[in-house]
Amino acid sequence: MPELRKDPITDRWVIISTERARRPSDFIRESRPTKASGRFCPFCPGHEGKTPPEVLAYRNGSGPNQPGWSLRVFPNKFPVLGIEGDLNREGDGMFDKMQGIGAHEVIVESPDHVLSMTELPESAIGQALAAFRERILDLKNDFRLRYVLLFRNEGEGAGATLEHTHSQLIALPVVPKSVKEELDGAKDYHDFKERCLFCDMIRQEAREAERVVLETDRFIVIEPYAARFPFETWILPKQHRSHYEGTEVRSFENLAWVLKSTLRKLEKVLERPAYNFLIHTAPLQEPPNTYYHWHIEIIPKLTRVAGFEWGTGFYINPTPPEESARFLREAGLG
Amino acid sequence: MPELRKDPITDRWVIISTERARRPSDFIRESRPTKASGRFCPFCPGHEGKTPPEVLAYRNGSGPNQPGWSLRVFPNKFPVLGIEGDLNREGDGMFDKMQGIGAHEVIVESPDHVLSMTELPESAIGQALAAFRERILDLKNDFRLRYVLLFRNEGEGAGATLEHTHSQLIALPVVPKSVKEELDGAKDYHDFKERCLFCDMIRQEAREAERVVLETDRFIVIEPYAARFPFETWILPKQHRSHYEGTEVRSFENLAWVLKSTLRKLEKVLERPAYNFLIHTAPLQEPPNTYYHWHIEIIPKLTRVAGFEWGTGFYINPTPPEESARFLREAGLG
Repeated sequence: MPELRKDPITDRWVIISTERARRPSDFIRESRPTKASGRFCPFCPGHEGKTPPEVLAYRNGSGPNQPGWSLRVFPNKFPVLGIEGDLNREGDGMFDKMQGIGAHEVIVESPDHVLSMTELPESAIGQALAAFRERILDLKNDFRLRYVLLFRNEGEGAGATLEHTHSQLIALPVVPKSVKEELDGAKDYHDFKERCLFCDMIRQEAREAERVVLETDRFIVIEPYAARFPFETWILPKQHRSHYEGTEVRSFENLAWVLKSTLRKLEKVLERPAYNFLIHTAPLQEPPNTYYHWHIEIIPKLTRVAGFEWGTGFYINPTPPEESARFLREAGLG
Repeated sequence: MPELRKDPITDRWVIISTERARRPSDFIRESRPTKASGRFCPFCPGHEGKTPPEVLAYRNGSGPNQPGWSLRVFPNKFPVLGIEGDLNREGDGMFDKMQGIGAHEVIVESPDHVLSMTELPESAIGQALAAFRERILDLKNDFRLRYVLLFRNEGEGAGATLEHTHSQLIALPVVPKSVKEELDGAKDYHDFKERCLFCDMIRQEAREAERVVLETDRFIVIEPYAARFPFETWILPKQHRSHYEGTEVRSFENLAWVLKSTLRKLEKVLERPAYNFLIHTAPLQEPPNTYYHWHIEIIPKLTRVAGFEWGTGFYINPTPPEESARFLREAGLG
């Protein structure tokens, strides 16, 4: 008998197929290539002129927009939102609109033309995590902006268009719907229990261990109880913190190891699947709070979202998270 | 400058790219084949034994599960939910679960092995619309069930696995999240304005005409103001009705023409795109109300949902609905 499970954060139900569970080898995978195509890459050193001028770079002495960097951040050449102008909120009969104000940036984490974050040394990943924080702190000064989403699309199946590994950032003038749902759900839980929902979840998952992929002193990696997708994986800091940018810089070294290890396990078990990676954090202009808890969500692209999911917001997950956690735990790091 | 627009029903924002709008020819399409593969089809007459026994059929004299039908409904052979048993709602520490009780049925609208609903005569489509109603009215007698979603996945890119044209129905023991959001949004609007949000929308769209695809005395077809996807298309009844099953049977003839005409226009402009089709209606066990308004949503698969959309629930639509409505209006029906 399939099981219905409710995500305690958003009250979203999922159908977990416990009977005809699909194993890693059953999925149609859009695996990512392992070799570079050899096409011209605007993200490689020496091609800095092909991107808009950088807004942040870690470099050893060289001048801006020159080679010699180890990480580089610049506005997306085809931004979905523009940074200049006013919001001009207005009505259109019964409808509401505003100008598309915001930021859309690209974070290139390494000058090396590698095709996967797992090919980067941990130091480069730690540096990327610090750069994410630095960009958020800078964008916080722009009071028009209310939320920053950091994300990665790895592989064409996940929406990536350039192969040189990179992350993206979109800053928005509104708190987006799915973040607001998480905030509201976490707030309601806190009002009722006087505890953080995520902290409770971390304690229960660590105790039961069934859905844990790996754990360090500072972070825990789990397959969530009501996972929407097979091998959906979350990374949570054990210490309560609402905002990603509130993370102490020294934690990034450990997070880099945790993130790389998690991604390597996913690549091993699922043969380099395309995936989306995103950071959920509290709204930019709000002070730290006791009810929301920042975290990373990793969604491998293994199934198609079809009419049922679009119509209901109800997901069918053919792999129980207990199963996927076992596969990932058992996959070595070597 | 891109524009942010808010869906008045769910408060979901979308980014409409007004500057670099994509035309129909710019999309990577997973077009559907026009010719049958010749593979064995369990939905064709004579193969009734390959499906579970029918729960409804329109036939001329022949016996159940025999050829001679013009429409046939049977349980899905691989159902995502089971019809037998009790819900057994219970906790699992801080989490909530229940048994996966529900119905999952297949509606084969024609004995002819055709690959698209548009190849069916209007009479067959009208008959399918009546069968949808009949199945909902039957399932309403099962008080464990709270919602019925009717949907179609056309083409592999939209999740279809069998080519013989068909619809599906999933009956759920909970009101799913995205329906609840629409209900809550419509209820709030009604509390504030004492009018139906959808009726207001129909009046404004009909008056402005910019986003109208086609219109009859009974139905209007629009590209919604805050369309999440390029060429997202909605069909709404002009007369207020919360439940699909409340539709008068004589309206189905007109709806069949409207639906077929709309799908033909989409197939013409987008070269037989894969698409999802779904009916949003009020919850099964609730009486008719004055605030919700049933409707059909058609979502062609033209873009990929990537990290940004998963992370925010905020959509980027590269084609303003005014543009897509113009393309569809101008596409003839011939």
